[in-house]
Amino acid sequence: MTQRNSRIRRKNGGTEGKEHLNFIALGGLGEIGKNMYVLEYGDEIIVIDSGLKFPDSELPGIDYIVPDISYLEANKDKILAIIITHGHEDHTGGLPYVLPRLNAPLYGTQLTLGLIRNKLQEDLPLYHPDYHEIRAGDVIKIGSFTIRFIAVAHSIPDGVALSIETPLGRIIHTGDFKLDSTPVDGRVTDYGAFAEEGDKGVMLLCSDSTNAERQGFTPSERTIAATLDSLFRTYRTKRIIVSSFASNVHRIQQVADVSARFNRKIAFLGRSMIRNVELARDTGYLKIDSRMIIQIEESWKYSDNQLVVVTTGSQGEPFSGLVTMSRGENKSVELGEHDVVFLLASVIPGNEKLINNTINRLFAQGCEVVYEKEKNTHVSGHASAEELKIILNLVRPQYFVPVHGEYKHMVRHSQLAQEVGIPQRNIFLMDNGDILTFSRNNPPKKYGHVQAGAVIVDGNAAGSIKSEVLKERREIAEDGVLVVGASVDDRGNLLAPVAIETQGVFISEDSRQIFDELYAVSERAIQELAGGRVNIDALKKAVKTRVRDVLRKRNSSFAVILPVISVKQSGYYDDYSKYEKEFF
Amino acid sequence: MTQRNSRIRRKNGGTEGKEHLNFIALGGLGEIGKNMYVLEYGDEIIVIDSGLKFPDSELPGIDYIVPDISYLEANKDKILAIIITHGHEDHTGGLPYVLPRLNAPLYGTQLTLGLIRNKLQEDLPLYHPDYHEIRAGDVIKIGSFTIRFIAVAHSIPDGVALSIETPLGRIIHTGDFKLDSTPVDGRVTDYGAFAEEGDKGVMLLCSDSTNAERQGFTPSERTIAATLDSLFRTYRTKRIIVSSFASNVHRIQQVADVSARFNRKIAFLGRSMIRNVELARDTGYLKIDSRMIIQIEESWKYSDNQLVVVTTGSQGEPFSGLVTMSRGENKSVELGEHDVVFLLASVIPGNEKLINNTINRLFAQGCEVVYEKEKNTHVSGHASAEELKIILNLVRPQYFVPVHGEYKHMVRHSQLAQEVGIPQRNIFLMDNGDILTFSRNNPPKKYGHVQAGAVIVDGNAAGSIKSEVLKERREIAEDGVLVVGASVDDRGNLLAPVAIETQGVFISEDSRQIFDELYAVSERAIQELAGGRVNIDALKKAVKTRVRDVLRKRNSSFAVILPVISVKQSGYYDDYSKYEKEFF
Repeated sequence: MTQRNSRIRRKNGGTEGKEHLNFIALGGLGEIGKNMYVLEYGDEIIVIDSGLKFPDSELPGIDYIVPDISYLEANKDKILAIIITHGHEDHTGGLPYVLPRLNAPLYGTQLTLGLIRNKLQEDLPLYHPDYHEIRAGDVIKIGSFTIRFIAVAHSIPDGVALSIETPLGRIIHTGDFKLDSTPVDGRVTDYGAFAEEGDKGVMLLCSDSTNAERQGFTPSERTIAATLDSLFRTYRTKRIIVSSFASNVHRIQQVADVSARFNRKIAFLGRSMIRNVELARDTGYLKIDSRMIIQIEESWKYSDNQLVVVTTGSQGEPFSGLVTMSRGENKSVELGEHDVVFLLASVIPGNEKLINNTINRLFAQGCEVVYEKEKNTHVSGHASAEELKIILNLVRPQYFVPVHGEYKHMVRHSQLAQEVGIPQRNIFLMDNGDILTFSRNNPPKKYGHVQAGAVIVDGNAAGSIKSEVLKERREIAEDGVLVVGASVDDRGNLLAPVAIETQGVFISEDSRQIFDELYAVSERAIQELAGGRVNIDALKKAVKTRVRDVLRKRNSSFAVILPVISVKQSGYYDDYSKYEKEFF
Repeated sequence: MTQRNSRIRRKNGGTEGKEHLNFIALGGLGEIGKNMYVLEYGDEIIVIDSGLKFPDSELPGIDYIVPDISYLEANKDKILAIIITHGHEDHTGGLPYVLPRLNAPLYGTQLTLGLIRNKLQEDLPLYHPDYHEIRAGDVIKIGSFTIRFIAVAHSIPDGVALSIETPLGRIIHTGDFKLDSTPVDGRVTDYGAFAEEGDKGVMLLCSDSTNAERQGFTPSERTIAATLDSLFRTYRTKRIIVSSFASNVHRIQQVADVSARFNRKIAFLGRSMIRNVELARDTGYLKIDSRMIIQIEESWKYSDNQLVVVTTGSQGEPFSGLVTMSRGENKSVELGEHDVVFLLASVIPGNEKLINNTINRLFAQGCEVVYEKEKNTHVSGHASAEELKIILNLVRPQYFVPVHGEYKHMVRHSQLAQEVGIPQRNIFLMDNGDILTFSRNNPPKKYGHVQAGAVIVDGNAAGSIKSEVLKERREIAEDGVLVVGASVDDRGNLLAPVAIETQGVFISEDSRQIFDELYAVSERAIQELAGGRVNIDALKKAVKTRVRDVLRKRNSSFAVILPVISVKQSGYYDDYSKYEKEFF
């Protein structure tokens, strides 16, 4: 067992050895996103999913977040497999970061691996993962784990749940699912398999909590067909623009079907949309007659009522097809009164403002927009309360861990589990990093914690950004930054007057007076410390304190103050221009 | 007519003179918030509402936004009245900024003026407005305008609509309203008055567009009583914490009524809650038996099932009662398993994350939380589509301007107006600042534009912040700031090595190497320009360009680069320490 440092050592109070099984989440608990779950038995580890999470406004300038995998890196040699339940980014998006660091074999279904392959070709063109394609129904043995893949319906095809037989008992991990009885592809969630596994006895169920707050049943994806039919009828004379998730193959299928019924051609727009449609058609998950598909460039040949444009941007993503259209900046589609836009997606929390702005701008282009909840233009891909209780009843697990949800979702899910008879003491509300340890003779227990958290990936920066940097960004975002520049000799005497620059600082109308005072107090602070050997930290501190006092008192400003002070070492170079020439 | 400068001159193409009437919005169109509408006839102006808007995450560090009133300041002498329709902050919150600048008489109902008085006592203790209290049903004459105040139901008591008889025709401005047939205070929206005015003939209707997207009818506020009854029954053994808007007197009344039925005492918590309850009880808008109200400090005397705590924080406001409780930091209320929290408010767009975090933290305190839409814990205060159509039909205006809404709401409202028979050419979708001019012989027309926009108020800064400052804040928030400090003599020769500081900049692992390169290119840039008379702007530009190139290429960083360069003027002072002594 290789361990890089003690911080990431597992502290599990003497549970080493073959006869313990640990369940750990490195992401996905207390949050929607960056799902990553770990099963560890002796020196064998399997990992379930490797997702990303998109940042909110508290992480300015950040592209995405992946789980901290220090624990897995330290235990790299033990990892037998990374199993991916389905192709959504909150389950796959961490792979470009995770795979090169762990180098483990990758298991998934055909479409899931296809989507991953597309992504990796772009992000890691030189990395070639060890792909293992599986199908729902397969049973495979990986080390001491025997894994059965169970078909589940979701808002992307080819999703699976896992039933994992371990030496200490059976574990079912649902992945993301709903109990859609009439899925578009006919691939119903395999209740039978869940029941069978339940009959054999299940030690632990880990189940999707996303919609635990919602009562009743999540409607079938197929209900969208009726909505589309009525919308296509209402707007029969207009050109139709449809915006949806590029991964929601079922929805795209339904748009294609209704387009065929109304004799409209389809043009796909947006790189991810085109790529996903191609993959899904190649692998048979999407069935569209080639004669129905046209290139967006030839759409001028068709009249409004002969055309549907399918594009991305349902979440207001800045460079998506829909958003560029709403700005009048899309080179292929110019919107006007003859157009109607259907937003066929729900609002992902955090995107409210982007979506709202997009809708307002679309209206300003003169087109009609259909986006209201009341129009039934979207159904969720996750099981609601009644469905979750059905799974709990089918599986009848001894222990239950709600996963894939914020804390409130996990609490609601645990309440549902209690309703169907699982005692509260057998339900574990866990945090990312918590170790739940199963052993033969004792009930499971939370034993300590491994390092878990967020690694922040800035698309520009190759590595990961430290939280300190983000804290600094938030500080300057609030009140701006005021910089005091000064050069001193090695005894701390000023070589020139100080200079002051600001960025994002509000200075009130008597700014002249305030700046005069800022110059004066900065110079005084430096001069007061002059005489001995120069101490840059002390100088900076003195300048900071004096300037801050003036800013707060005179300008009510809480700007970050950044002194930048250089020291001319005597004897080091007196004629700087000479030194300069030597240096280069 | 006083006009401060040409930028804010009204450009209305020759519509000067008595026989024109202008309708202008200075805030409230294309947005929810900072409502302010202007009616101008010759040299008479009346202003309707003076609201604020809370900023979103794109305005970091900003407290609130008020309308740009340059146009009104320039025409200050013409203003006869500021009429406030109701006491919500998006209609009153601009007054502390607006009143001292315009010094106009203020008209409103008893509760509305009471709330304003409370606010002004805090913000402008030395300012004493010229208050004119009116009641629904009153008809008053202000200059050439004869104004009838019409009772409307809303989520705050004592709201009014205005029917304004002008020399050119009648204008109805609805204010915020719903057609609640069973309002808690029995004060039904006065359909009869709308119908009467409609019979007399209405030239222009300006109506509330907030819920134009929602089909059907907004449920009555009274429906909350049934929800509360069932919740109080379900959680009869628990202590009950209720969170709602401090201004929603009707809802507080209903909480008090159900508390009385269940023999619970009420403790109010939070400054604005206590102040509003006091005002509403004093003025008779809220009827609670004094024996039912206890101080929060004496709540320990009561068992859980004898107590209700009513507090603020339904929008996750950082220092509110509910949020401090959720953090375990409220000194009066410590939450636990024996508590249940009811969130009796909807999510105001933009607050999703704050509210969500609060709910998750409340669960983490161990209490139960009721917040779901499905539980019917909130109804809106604004009319939905069917109600809006009823008002349109009662009033039958010749012209229609949808107000109080984002662009999408205004479009939907204009579609409703067309459904009930108002021709599209008689509907005006306006922007803030647009002038809609009515004259005797021609149809109304949009003539030009007055200065309109946002004045940003930073609680700390007394004045208003320029948008440039906000742009700068956004830039540094994204990628941080890198400062290059240098001092040069008057020929541009460096006096000391440059110094570099960063805030919020991500520097990859080979940071040593990158910094060495940054020092080198900065110094080279400065030295290359040395020799002639120093040009600070050219120096800054050169440093910026070189440093940016290195940062982007070597570190993929788009940090803001801020050179801070000081110049030592020769002959000005050679012995700086001597100068220094003279200076102070």
